[in-house]
Amino acid sequence: MSEKQVFATQAIAFKGADTKDPLAFRYYDASKVVHGKKMEDWLRFSVVYWHTFRAVGADPFGPQTLHRPWDTSDDITREFDAIAESCKHRVDAAFEFFTKLGVKYYAFHDRDVAPELATIDESNKLLEVVTDYMKVKQQETGVKLLWGTANLFSAPKYANGAATNPDVKIFAHACAQVKKAMEVTHKLGGEGFVFWGGREGYQTILNTDIKKELDHMAAFFHMAVAFKKSIGATFQFYIEPKPKEPTKHQYDYDAQTVMCFLKQYNLDDHFLLNIEPNHTTLAGHSYEHDIVLSAAYGKLGSVDCNTGDELLGWDTDQFLMDERKATLVMKAIVDMGGFTTGGLNFDCKVRRESNDLEDLFIAHVGSMDVFAKGLLNAVKLIEDGRLDQMKKDRYASWKEESLGSKVESGQATFGDLEAFAKANATPKIASGKQELYERVFNDSL
Amino acid sequence: MSEKQVFATQAIAFKGADTKDPLAFRYYDASKVVHGKKMEDWLRFSVVYWHTFRAVGADPFGPQTLHRPWDTSDDITREFDAIAESCKHRVDAAFEFFTKLGVKYYAFHDRDVAPELATIDESNKLLEVVTDYMKVKQQETGVKLLWGTANLFSAPKYANGAATNPDVKIFAHACAQVKKAMEVTHKLGGEGFVFWGGREGYQTILNTDIKKELDHMAAFFHMAVAFKKSIGATFQFYIEPKPKEPTKHQYDYDAQTVMCFLKQYNLDDHFLLNIEPNHTTLAGHSYEHDIVLSAAYGKLGSVDCNTGDELLGWDTDQFLMDERKATLVMKAIVDMGGFTTGGLNFDCKVRRESNDLEDLFIAHVGSMDVFAKGLLNAVKLIEDGRLDQMKKDRYASWKEESLGSKVESGQATFGDLEAFAKANATPKIASGKQELYERVFNDSL
Amino acid sequence: MSEKQVFATQAIAFKGADTKDPLAFRYYDASKVVHGKKMEDWLRFSVVYWHTFRAVGADPFGPQTLHRPWDTSDDITREFDAIAESCKHRVDAAFEFFTKLGVKYYAFHDRDVAPELATIDESNKLLEVVTDYMKVKQQETGVKLLWGTANLFSAPKYANGAATNPDVKIFAHACAQVKKAMEVTHKLGGEGFVFWGGREGYQTILNTDIKKELDHMAAFFHMAVAFKKSIGATFQFYIEPKPKEPTKHQYDYDAQTVMCFLKQYNLDDHFLLNIEPNHTTLAGHSYEHDIVLSAAYGKLGSVDCNTGDELLGWDTDQFLMDERKATLVMKAIVDMGGFTTGGLNFDCKVRRESNDLEDLFIAHVGSMDVFAKGLLNAVKLIEDGRLDQMKKDRYASWKEESLGSKVESGQATFGDLEAFAKANATPKIASGKQELYERVFNDSL
Amino acid sequence: MSEKQVFATQAIAFKGADTKDPLAFRYYDASKVVHGKKMEDWLRFSVVYWHTFRAVGADPFGPQTLHRPWDTSDDITREFDAIAESCKHRVDAAFEFFTKLGVKYYAFHDRDVAPELATIDESNKLLEVVTDYMKVKQQETGVKLLWGTANLFSAPKYANGAATNPDVKIFAHACAQVKKAMEVTHKLGGEGFVFWGGREGYQTILNTDIKKELDHMAAFFHMAVAFKKSIGATFQFYIEPKPKEPTKHQYDYDAQTVMCFLKQYNLDDHFLLNIEPNHTTLAGHSYEHDIVLSAAYGKLGSVDCNTGDELLGWDTDQFLMDERKATLVMKAIVDMGGFTTGGLNFDCKVRRESNDLEDLFIAHVGSMDVFAKGLLNAVKLIEDGRLDQMKKDRYASWKEESLGSKVESGQATFGDLEAFAKANATPKIASGKQELYERVFNDSL
Repeated sequence: MSEKQVFATQAIAFKGADTKDPLAFRYYDASKVVHGKKMEDWLRFSVVYWHTFRAVGADPFGPQTLHRPWDTSDDITREFDAIAESCKHRVDAAFEFFTKLGVKYYAFHDRDVAPELATIDESNKLLEVVTDYMKVKQQETGVKLLWGTANLFSAPKYANGAATNPDVKIFAHACAQVKKAMEVTHKLGGEGFVFWGGREGYQTILNTDIKKELDHMAAFFHMAVAFKKSIGATFQFYIEPKPKEPTKHQYDYDAQTVMCFLKQYNLDDHFLLNIEPNHTTLAGHSYEHDIVLSAAYGKLGSVDCNTGDELLGWDTDQFLMDERKATLVMKAIVDMGGFTTGGLNFDCKVRRESNDLEDLFIAHVGSMDVFAKGLLNAVKLIEDGRLDQMKKDRYASWKEESLGSKVESGQATFGDLEAFAKANATPKIASGKQELYERVFNDSL
Repeated sequence: MSEKQVFATQAIAFKGADTKDPLAFRYYDASKVVHGKKMEDWLRFSVVYWHTFRAVGADPFGPQTLHRPWDTSDDITREFDAIAESCKHRVDAAFEFFTKLGVKYYAFHDRDVAPELATIDESNKLLEVVTDYMKVKQQETGVKLLWGTANLFSAPKYANGAATNPDVKIFAHACAQVKKAMEVTHKLGGEGFVFWGGREGYQTILNTDIKKELDHMAAFFHMAVAFKKSIGATFQFYIEPKPKEPTKHQYDYDAQTVMCFLKQYNLDDHFLLNIEPNHTTLAGHSYEHDIVLSAAYGKLGSVDCNTGDELLGWDTDQFLMDERKATLVMKAIVDMGGFTTGGLNFDCKVRRESNDLEDLFIAHVGSMDVFAKGLLNAVKLIEDGRLDQMKKDRYASWKEESLGSKVESGQATFGDLEAFAKANATPKIASGKQELYERVFNDSL
Repeated sequence: MSEKQVFATQAIAFKGADTKDPLAFRYYDASKVVHGKKMEDWLRFSVVYWHTFRAVGADPFGPQTLHRPWDTSDDITREFDAIAESCKHRVDAAFEFFTKLGVKYYAFHDRDVAPELATIDESNKLLEVVTDYMKVKQQETGVKLLWGTANLFSAPKYANGAATNPDVKIFAHACAQVKKAMEVTHKLGGEGFVFWGGREGYQTILNTDIKKELDHMAAFFHMAVAFKKSIGATFQFYIEPKPKEPTKHQYDYDAQTVMCFLKQYNLDDHFLLNIEPNHTTLAGHSYEHDIVLSAAYGKLGSVDCNTGDELLGWDTDQFLMDERKATLVMKAIVDMGGFTTGGLNFDCKVRRESNDLEDLFIAHVGSMDVFAKGLLNAVKLIEDGRLDQMKKDRYASWKEESLGSKVESGQATFGDLEAFAKANATPKIASGKQELYERVFNDSL
Repeated sequence: MSEKQVFATQAIAFKGADTKDPLAFRYYDASKVVHGKKMEDWLRFSVVYWHTFRAVGADPFGPQTLHRPWDTSDDITREFDAIAESCKHRVDAAFEFFTKLGVKYYAFHDRDVAPELATIDESNKLLEVVTDYMKVKQQETGVKLLWGTANLFSAPKYANGAATNPDVKIFAHACAQVKKAMEVTHKLGGEGFVFWGGREGYQTILNTDIKKELDHMAAFFHMAVAFKKSIGATFQFYIEPKPKEPTKHQYDYDAQTVMCFLKQYNLDDHFLLNIEPNHTTLAGHSYEHDIVLSAAYGKLGSVDCNTGDELLGWDTDQFLMDERKATLVMKAIVDMGGFTTGGLNFDCKVRRESNDLEDLFIAHVGSMDVFAKGLLNAVKLIEDGRLDQMKKDRYASWKEESLGSKVESGQATFGDLEAFAKANATPKIASGKQELYERVFNDSL
């Protein structure tokens, strides 16, 4: 492979809050210990292959605007070796980027690193060759795979769904593809494997048998569980909810919809959630909602740490630049003791208009700093203690009154409660004190 | 009770599609048999006590505009008997309305028919007295109770929630109240009992322990199940989802969120859903989505058959006047064989500006006709058969290929599917034919 | 050019309401006279070149799914004549489609019919050659050009805007392009010329000088007015509002925003509006709102008669299949006496999954029928007269009271009104009767 | 009037950024000079009478939760003097609050300070008496009136509109009421007078003649202009846009809609805009959009500095607690040189659950601090200069190329531009650098 570097940008350094250098960190000081862990261990940043190395800036109203030095050719009619060489060239660029940026993780879809070729066998062969090279680069750099996944939404055959396709033949193609993607993820030591069902949903309910499609999706997941076991893989499975886009209705609407599905089909033990806040807001919930909610039920696995625009109805996959939101997210993550297999994965793309190569660095650095600041704020909030104490006090009556624990343990009856209500005829209505909570929260910023 | 009628409007008659009389039915011919049942048995219309007999036309920007002859006084400092007399007066008006309109069912909250008095005992006594009278009226008129419910959101004590209140004392008040509401519903032979958690949610996640609140809500429901058993009641429990309003986030967000909760807390056997389409669209789903989805999983119990405005972000509780939407709903209901305990409950209010008494009739008649037309359309669509056949054909490969049933029965592996995919290397990508489905659907209107 | 037909579908015939043939009209009977005009003259249907002949089914999550027989090659590195031949081949297909479908109008962007080549001169030459051929086909078939337009949003140079680009050099490219597009529209006898400013807006207000950009856009329009005069063109200029997508904020947000801009920059005399309801709903208004509003001020020129999904936040450009909405639109159009230069232009695309060639016909036929039914309903409503009379009566006091006309003519003062108010101390508050209006409207369907 | 104070809270002091006292300012140091003015002169904070002294915490799902010591009685059947006394009692509380909080301005509707009585004369008399007392309190405390307004939306007679009511008699009542409200605003030396047309819009387009209603609204405004002149008032007229709620469609949708109306009816010279960001986001624009846009056209008069929740569809009127948004607003205000007659008016309410009296202080103090921090950030951003310079450089070609000014002065033709484009055949496509702008913006926080 070429040793020539593609990025003029040098390795990003921490320079402190007062720096005006957009190619330096103001807050992210990887090895600094806060609240008992290094910042890099709390944050576990990951760069995504698709947006950062494959996005070309096309949108529904215009074609490519982003031309990258590593995009030498997309022609899949070339000789196998020439194609493989192009792919490896991109791998070099990617690992140069990871290393200069200073992240420890990355994530990819099978088709990001190796395009689909004419047959399953050829596609698989190419994927093996390229991932073999990625494994070498991982060892050279120490960068690890946060998670792998299969792209089951771009190929035209998946237009009507992959695991929910009305045609069992296309369903079979999806199975074959995810089988191979799991194999290479296992080979690369990936810590996770994500399912995002981009076309698992409906465009019109008129032509769709929802129940049948969901039954098939469940069968698909059960086979994935069995196959994972059969190859001895230990990566964590995640499902990533999204309410809509590209389909009118996506089956994995939001965190609780996925949790419902997992319960309905006895899959609950095998999957955690990978929450993307841009999807959460598209589902009508606040930025942090699905993170907090899934964490509350022990189902938060990983986070695709992007943002959308709450007033736009599509996935903009922007870099989060708002420390307030980052603080809410990091509070939930620190409260649960940090990630196990997951991380903060930048499922973000530079804008179509941001066509300078350095914009890739500016964007990642800017957002890493926002999450680093969010971590510092969250720790400040936790160590200050006021907010958590206020919240604890708010529920104090459940501990103070013996009936509280009786209810919580399932021993109480409506009769008990009625008697208690009569004995406490006019309970004080406590202020919710939202504005005070907001003020105390602001004190941490 | 007064024998004087309050409505000048006479009993509503069926006059056929060409009538221009807004106080007559064009399509709803109650005893006409279609697709094997009387229209009234498919539709099971129900009028709600709250909007129709208690709404005053206030909104956040202005007070009462609707003055009703039965609202003689709301003063709860009067003598008990005077209060009871006012309540009974309203009951008379309600049953006059049900009867003239020609519906067989109604629904009410405890506080609709009998206001809360100074103590639990007094409130309960009043509720007994008024519901005793309602029982008499039911017997006189043959009108039945579709469902009863407890209003756990209006009283100021519930500002921070009822079953999810941070204060166990207020939780107890909610239990006491729902206990009595269940008793009177049982007494009245109600076919269902609904839980709509108007304030079960959060205004800010900053002051809220979501998990603790949901645990309490589950405990509350378990006690309800036990209490129902203890009194020998056979009514069906329903939960009614809503995503937001009055709270920023309502725990019972949509059908699948509720189904998730029921599974998480082992409540699944005891509850069906009462779906309100205005809530469904507020959650970002199409009008019919939650009805179709819950029906697919055998969880559709009843329907609050109103509509909102998809471009407004609050619950407008309008009368549905769009036969297209009514057809989609009725198709799902006819496909499942009709309601068992549920019905089409008009959780709708005339506009604040519709201050003529006759507007109550015009609105109900207009919307009953829309659902009747929707039923006729749905039956036409089903009997025509094209749409259902097209949909069946779309999934035909799952039957034609033996691997299809192997997958569906959980016997297949990714290896099997991979082999099959290789053998079917380039599956035809079938057109989804959305526009054809839409055309065929339109043929039924 | 090849005489070979590309569509197996035969010319679409009117077969009456009971036909089940999706390739026949149930309601659209072109030469049938209703309310004093032929249906084709009320409706003035137009097919668009871009979606119907250029769309390939790509979306942000997947590439081409629609492969058309006329898409022989997009390679613009071929010889000029070979490129021109490909373009003419597509023109043949388009006119075959227009003719078989039975529409009298079409619309196109410059780049739809002739791709951009290496230089302005070459691009212009190709556009002349292709439009010369289109002129021949127009004469052969009698099909006319409803409007032409320039695509100022797809080329990468327009990523940051065309008439609002921060770089005057790119602004100049936009001017050169629209100049040529106006010339060929004039040559083809186009009845209109549309400006849709796809990238005239901002992605972030942080990098944008709104006022400067709007000043430039106004200068651009003033030059267009002058150029139109200089070539003796008589086509009608239209601006098409859209609130967002692809940009975060589009300057031409909705009808009134455009009307504001036209007033601010003294352009009011030269432009009407081309309203697309999918854009109207994205701006938060009801489907028919901008049509009714712009008609009320004499600014409605033409309609891009598609629909979106009110619960999705992007432009789905679907074929309208809902006669209720079509009726509201046709009511406004009949009330204004019909179109002058405008028409109902199908700015609609078949779904990405609708990959059968016949789906193009099914979709257009289905939606033409919906608008034809909408026209029949609107005429029924108008000829019935009740709804219009109710509305007129609602404002009767302005005629009955002499003060009404005094106010309307600007002769009254607050003092006059105060005296009148005191003399009419407790005016009756009339019911808005929304439910009655809805019922009467439904009587027309 | 009673000299007894109703608030236990003492005057709020500035204690610096590290204070944890929620009843102290961290950033707002009223007399501190930044960027050439005192903070209080940049910010011109104003408290509103309606939310802070009249809100009771009712919402559509429940009644009053907020009980205030100054709400001794709302009974308007009492003797005139008793009613007046109650009103004055509230005035005392209000001025105590203004003074302790340290704001220089307040705003009110006529009906906030004096309820409507049985006749116009009586209502006017009461309003005079109470505002006479307010004038005394203004002189005592130095607190001034930012603006007055008439409540033309709460009274039931305005259900179908005030200036757009179908009944000229009700229109007359609106005129009489606003006439008196202007008189008392003039008496109190109010610096502005606001029109918010809460019911000027439609609930259904079916019963509405939009053009007639807007013509009447314009006539109403022309009379207001004439009346203002006749009494020698110098206050600034403002119109406050809102897109919806309580009506389905409000005529004053957003800033540009109002600017359009003012142009259409020759009212442009007499009105500026009062922008409320909660209304801006309901209209689909970003928080700061209407502020920046109206400032760009010299139409920004004043700001109702609240916030909503971008994922909720109704006006929550919350206190802004997000310094990022405050910075964007303050940047626009500092860039225009500060307010003239306007200010930052807290059209905000404590939550229904925030029932402690001190919550009123906590909320105002918290949000004043957020705007103060926003001001400091904006000044830092301006004085740093990078962001403004980047933006200026972005448009540099318009100055560098002589054709730029030719276009801007209206001297150029499409021919000139075409020649220039051919001479600049492949312009560089500059990066929009959104992520860099966001990073630089973040450096100011």
